[in-house]
Amino acid sequence: MTVYLVGAGPGDPDLLTLRAHRLLGRADVVIVDRLVDPRVLELVAPGATVIDVGKHPRDGRASVSQDEINQLLIAEGSSGATVIRLKGGDPFVFGRGGEELVALSAAGIDVEVVPGLTSALSVPLLAGIPVTHRGAATSVTIVTGHGGTDGSVDWAALAKAGGTLSIVMGVARRAEIAEALIEGGRPGSTPVVVLHAGATPTEQRWRTTLDQLGNLEVAAPAVFVVGEVAGLELA
Amino acid sequence: MTVYLVGAGPGDPDLLTLRAHRLLGRADVVIVDRLVDPRVLELVAPGATVIDVGKHPRDGRASVSQDEINQLLIAEGSSGATVIRLKGGDPFVFGRGGEELVALSAAGIDVEVVPGLTSALSVPLLAGIPVTHRGAATSVTIVTGHGGTDGSVDWAALAKAGGTLSIVMGVARRAEIAEALIEGGRPGSTPVVVLHAGATPTEQRWRTTLDQLGNLEVAAPAVFVVGEVAGLELA
Repeated sequence: MTVYLVGAGPGDPDLLTLRAHRLLGRADVVIVDRLVDPRVLELVAPGATVIDVGKHPRDGRASVSQDEINQLLIAEGSSGATVIRLKGGDPFVFGRGGEELVALSAAGIDVEVVPGLTSALSVPLLAGIPVTHRGAATSVTIVTGHGGTDGSVDWAALAKAGGTLSIVMGVARRAEIAEALIEGGRPGSTPVVVLHAGATPTEQRWRTTLDQLGNLEVAAPAVFVVGEVAGLELA
Repeated sequence: MTVYLVGAGPGDPDLLTLRAHRLLGRADVVIVDRLVDPRVLELVAPGATVIDVGKHPRDGRASVSQDEINQLLIAEGSSGATVIRLKGGDPFVFGRGGEELVALSAAGIDVEVVPGLTSALSVPLLAGIPVTHRGAATSVTIVTGHGGTDGSVDWAALAKAGGTLSIVMGVARRAEIAEALIEGGRPGSTPVVVLHAGATPTEQRWRTTLDQLGNLEVAAPAVFVVGEVAGLELA
């Protein structure tokens, strides 16, 4: 018994891996979350059951807890069917894939993890931003803004580390994050590119600076690229 | 005229994107470096010209300079042929893809950049390491060890930032890097997983700690995963 824990990439189905594409074509059950692009689901084998755990199975509104998802994965994974757990981006970059791996392994179910392109790197790339451009950045840090400034992320230390920051899930707390980075030493004039819904048909882009980020009207999902590379004028 | 700047991923051809696979199948010219897996080149269209710029065209030994590569890309890109510049991993993560984009754009040649899976994230994933496992890390920093401890990377600040580090091209300077991270505040007991030639048939893995990294015998290429996630015992 194997459950395939598969990354769906940033949106565009052409950016799936060959491995992911092949698995979707022979799936019996595909368990997806709300970050998976609907165009990717068109590649699922006809007749396969698609279960959306971004919507609650009972009322279609509230989201399903991670515990419930783990139990569902174990139940489906024990059935002998070819089960794919399909996650937006990469399963191991803020995808909670590690927790699902732990739960499945504890239940005696084999897991094969298939990487996907994380939005944190592929969305900037598709916007022409080389996150580690020579002379502009020697590192790139992928960090979630979800936890905000409650201490779980040391924004001041990240500010001092000086490389490119690619911030995902930071829309709600963008003002606090920008303020924390400025307090940590990044100039308010530091360039920021905001990429909403990258690699999808509704994508939008803005250029701003750290001290103006809080004033920008932007809806989730978005990637914020912070640093000198965000100010490069390339193609 | 368009040159396609394409990421080849970590090695296994199944981890190419659908877009990269399709482009390779209709290429006239493919310009590759030494980090591209030979199995990926088997997917290039029959009859296409493959130019390896990891070897010098004259003597097959010394590597070609970035300027020479840029000139070659411009010359081939101006010819009307379908030209693919194929790079190991992701073109914009330490791939010097940004420089090639700049050179081609300046020469009036359009560029389409196609993301690839960076080894810095996909190789740990394939080894079962969730780089941002909940409770263990709220960020992952991808950093090159190539520049060593000469000041271009602030290892002390990265040490203080506290998330997972995925260090690429760090084999030669592993002892210095480990020392700089310990001086920056990471305990010598911090777990490290060393992944040599991940996603290839010759891959090897070791578990060590920061204070022992310098003593480990390992050949390039390798990815070092540093942090609590490297100590998780998962599947």
